[in-house]
Amino acid sequence: MPTYTAPVNDIQFVLHQVLGASEQDIPGYEELDAEFTAAVLEEAGKIASGVLAPLNLEGDSRGVRFENGVVRTPEGFREAFEQIKAGGWPALDCDPDYGGQGMPVLLGTAVGELFSGANQSFTMYQGLTHGAYSAIHAHGTDAQKAKWLPRMVSCEWTGTMNLTEPQSGTDLGLMRTRAVPQDDGTYRITGEKIFISAGDHDLAGNVVHLVLARISGAPEGIKGVSLFIVPKVLVNEDGSLGARNNVSVGKVEKKMGIHANATCVMNYDGAEGYLLGQEHKGMRAMFTMMNEARLGVAMQGLAQAEAACQNAADYARERLQGRAVTGAENPGGPADSIIVHPDVRRALMDQRSFIEGARAFLLWGASLIDRSRRCDDAAAEGLISLLIPVLKGFLTDKGFDATVAAQQIFGGHGYIEETGMSQFVRDARITQIYEGANGVQALDLVGRKLAAEGGKPIMAFFDLVKRFIAENEGDAVLREAFLEPLKAASKDLQAASMFFMENGAKNPNAALAGSYDFMHLFGHVCLGLMWARMAGASAAALASGTGDAAFHEAKLVTGRYYMARQLPATALHLARIRSGDAPVMALPADRF
Amino acid sequence: MPTYTAPVNDIQFVLHQVLGASEQDIPGYEELDAEFTAAVLEEAGKIASGVLAPLNLEGDSRGVRFENGVVRTPEGFREAFEQIKAGGWPALDCDPDYGGQGMPVLLGTAVGELFSGANQSFTMYQGLTHGAYSAIHAHGTDAQKAKWLPRMVSCEWTGTMNLTEPQSGTDLGLMRTRAVPQDDGTYRITGEKIFISAGDHDLAGNVVHLVLARISGAPEGIKGVSLFIVPKVLVNEDGSLGARNNVSVGKVEKKMGIHANATCVMNYDGAEGYLLGQEHKGMRAMFTMMNEARLGVAMQGLAQAEAACQNAADYARERLQGRAVTGAENPGGPADSIIVHPDVRRALMDQRSFIEGARAFLLWGASLIDRSRRCDDAAAEGLISLLIPVLKGFLTDKGFDATVAAQQIFGGHGYIEETGMSQFVRDARITQIYEGANGVQALDLVGRKLAAEGGKPIMAFFDLVKRFIAENEGDAVLREAFLEPLKAASKDLQAASMFFMENGAKNPNAALAGSYDFMHLFGHVCLGLMWARMAGASAAALASGTGDAAFHEAKLVTGRYYMARQLPATALHLARIRSGDAPVMALPADRF
Repeated sequence: MPTYTAPVNDIQFVLHQVLGASEQDIPGYEELDAEFTAAVLEEAGKIASGVLAPLNLEGDSRGVRFENGVVRTPEGFREAFEQIKAGGWPALDCDPDYGGQGMPVLLGTAVGELFSGANQSFTMYQGLTHGAYSAIHAHGTDAQKAKWLPRMVSCEWTGTMNLTEPQSGTDLGLMRTRAVPQDDGTYRITGEKIFISAGDHDLAGNVVHLVLARISGAPEGIKGVSLFIVPKVLVNEDGSLGARNNVSVGKVEKKMGIHANATCVMNYDGAEGYLLGQEHKGMRAMFTMMNEARLGVAMQGLAQAEAACQNAADYARERLQGRAVTGAENPGGPADSIIVHPDVRRALMDQRSFIEGARAFLLWGASLIDRSRRCDDAAAEGLISLLIPVLKGFLTDKGFDATVAAQQIFGGHGYIEETGMSQFVRDARITQIYEGANGVQALDLVGRKLAAEGGKPIMAFFDLVKRFIAENEGDAVLREAFLEPLKAASKDLQAASMFFMENGAKNPNAALAGSYDFMHLFGHVCLGLMWARMAGASAAALASGTGDAAFHEAKLVTGRYYMARQLPATALHLARIRSGDAPVMALPADRF
Repeated sequence: MPTYTAPVNDIQFVLHQVLGASEQDIPGYEELDAEFTAAVLEEAGKIASGVLAPLNLEGDSRGVRFENGVVRTPEGFREAFEQIKAGGWPALDCDPDYGGQGMPVLLGTAVGELFSGANQSFTMYQGLTHGAYSAIHAHGTDAQKAKWLPRMVSCEWTGTMNLTEPQSGTDLGLMRTRAVPQDDGTYRITGEKIFISAGDHDLAGNVVHLVLARISGAPEGIKGVSLFIVPKVLVNEDGSLGARNNVSVGKVEKKMGIHANATCVMNYDGAEGYLLGQEHKGMRAMFTMMNEARLGVAMQGLAQAEAACQNAADYARERLQGRAVTGAENPGGPADSIIVHPDVRRALMDQRSFIEGARAFLLWGASLIDRSRRCDDAAAEGLISLLIPVLKGFLTDKGFDATVAAQQIFGGHGYIEETGMSQFVRDARITQIYEGANGVQALDLVGRKLAAEGGKPIMAFFDLVKRFIAENEGDAVLREAFLEPLKAASKDLQAASMFFMENGAKNPNAALAGSYDFMHLFGHVCLGLMWARMAGASAAALASGTGDAAFHEAKLVTGRYYMARQLPATALHLARIRSGDAPVMALPADRF
């Protein structure tokens, strides 16, 4: 069975030595000193390793059961959910006015990685609740907030997001679910929603569905869509649970992965619902939560990669097979451990160098969300809006690749379900798809974010890179191995942006044909920047003789690998982008 | 449910317009005129689409059952297997002396793609039998061949290959299974073998296991391994079935994919076995079949990609979502089909341009096997031995990627098992692992094949590329779009080979750290060469006004895509290779 160890040291390094969390002038960050975050992460790590990880493989093989209209989670999930609730974990980064602990998104994301890495299916029940919480918190009336939030913050009730319908996925304007206004101010919701994660289960007394629907007489398309609160069980004036609402599970999907999370077809049959936010402004309400939701998916991609890589590294150290080409390293044993083979190391370095860079990128992104919200900082908001599709698309694509590479290290054993390596691949796969498939992220990036505010955010990003390089040019450790490759990669990104600016206006296909490559090019530059920053922090620590020297040496070595072997991919992406739309669009549709 | 259409026109194009099969001076090829191969492929295509494909999804969801020591294949498999046998398909490329039809590997591979693309799990029962047939055919005594082959050629009995043990995978020298010689010349085989594909089932009256084992007193390591025939049921002198042998199934593995093929733990408990070939020369016997077996796995990788891509293209044409950025293309409908979006096309072009290039490479490889065998041509043998790890590693890696890309086009629907897109991914995944994991292929390529015969085969390959370029330099259609990129890519491959020659001898890790990148670099150059050849054939057809103009235009368009957007990857692989072993090997093993 696979194991999970919380990467506390790596997270602490990013929080404090790279991001300098407690020194940032963001309200609430002053509490985030190293001792405090270590205590939180250690505690969360114990639950992740000791409670959630042991349920992961079994949860996958059993899956959820749907019998007689009731959805049951796998054995052990209820008890574990009670433990999570008792520890107050779901409340960590929620509003204290509703029972939350008021911690920043930064800490919530760091803890989220541990839970998600240990058990993605399980953690989604809590994660979806947090998404629904955020929507009600941002758009609800005081009465709605008082009614729904406290019990969602505690996870006494869980939440869901209902967007997709069979004919309406990315294109939400095609939505058909109807909301009919009633005299008492409520609505009757009727329609079918699909792919509803955590749609029903036996972990909580109520499920608070947020449902996008069209009020009778609303404008056609996306501008006629409103958001509603539709509980599984109606709630009485006094807060007690009342009658069952007309909400039912039509089906629980059989999926490639996340078997222990119930992905439901939800049927609304004149269900009672309450308008959340303004009429016809449902999409705007969704958009305000999008950055955080997509950051959460990026986190999941990274988390599965970390979990898979840990097990691959353990296996590579333990599995005896063949001899090192440079001479036996375990001459007393029947063979050397396979970690002596350069190609096994290459695969592990691919994983590690991605994971550690990705974690820094993720947590930087979380801190930008905090800054944009807590400081009302428009520049931070612009920058994170630009980076979100990159975080979501790049971290989940490369996170998935890392799980595949980890599985590969097990050889045939990786293909057998009992080692758990297949589950990491299958669970990670969904992160590339949900919360906006990665092609849609690329479209959002190139079609919307790049030109936003006249290009201010992307210019701010380039400035940031330039400033870092200028400030560190004199550092011998950084210059050749980190700054030069970063400079080259950033130049490729600028050239690609320039190509879009020159060609995109007269021929939008020329930009969109390169959108996916641009997302990856951008992701590499971000990880290059993160590695340069981490290398700077580790070089400083080594120079001053503080901290664990071996830890910092390892950071420099891993960073050099990324810069030498991964970052050069930017040139390939640029070449593809510059080839334009002709090769992409030339084949007639019926010839595929 | 997914569908499958045999890509007969594409195969015919490669066989006749690219490879000029019937004009090649290889015994047996004179029969392969276009009319004959079309008839064979059409007939095989009907079985693939009409019989095998409809069993694929159901076979995946039911899987094999193992109850009371008996392995049962999914419903419909027995009837389909009878149809395959009745059609004589397993005999297609077997020796006429034993009931085969004597067709070349080329045709066997082309037909194999259709069956495998329609249903990989099912086709493996036949495929493993063919592998065992080949071993007995190459190394058996006349008596052994007469006894075992006719009923394996007909698939009345099926076969397996038993190599792996729990502690012995890639490193077969660690093998523990023992063979004790008996007075009557037979052996008693005792040991546990794992990951035995098609290890047991209800499709045939007998299963002929080929088992690697160590004869008592044999030398340690790989040089003490012998190969044995160990039937599930003993065969009497008169050919009738006798008593059950002491062979049993210990377990049927629960795997990520190929659920309908029984992957067994086989227990040999003093089972009666017959030495095949010479004592202690078991590995040599395995090696003679390796090229064909690995070509077969390359074929599987391509086949799953083709099947997945067909369904993705259909979905992209049918699924209505969003509008073309250049203006609605289906203004009467609720939305445009998603194939109008440049990034969807980009993903489909990635798949198609790989698949068509890969098919040409695969069939070229098959023709080299035929030439090496049927003409006893050492140069062809050297070249295919060099190319086999590239075929196996590159086609299965990129084939897997193609299935993932195809699944992605379905969005959330691709993650649901009922669309079948997940199965393509899960089934394709094994091709990267079995028959030598792809890292082992890369090691074989760089550590063994590259330097074989003093580098003669790799020089022959470069000559081949150079000659093609020189011969076609005057062709305006080819020059800029095909020959220039091919020249650049081939130069990268030469530079990488040079790097290994200069550094490999004094530091083998420097070569092996780049082995995986070299395999992919080589794969790209091969596909580049194939596309240049295909483009030449299509350009000629268009110039002469023969054939289907739209077909040939599509070939040129798809080829240009590959050259412009995929082939430039060679520069990235070269950069990685040149970074050497320092970044790969620097991290201490306990730091991963």
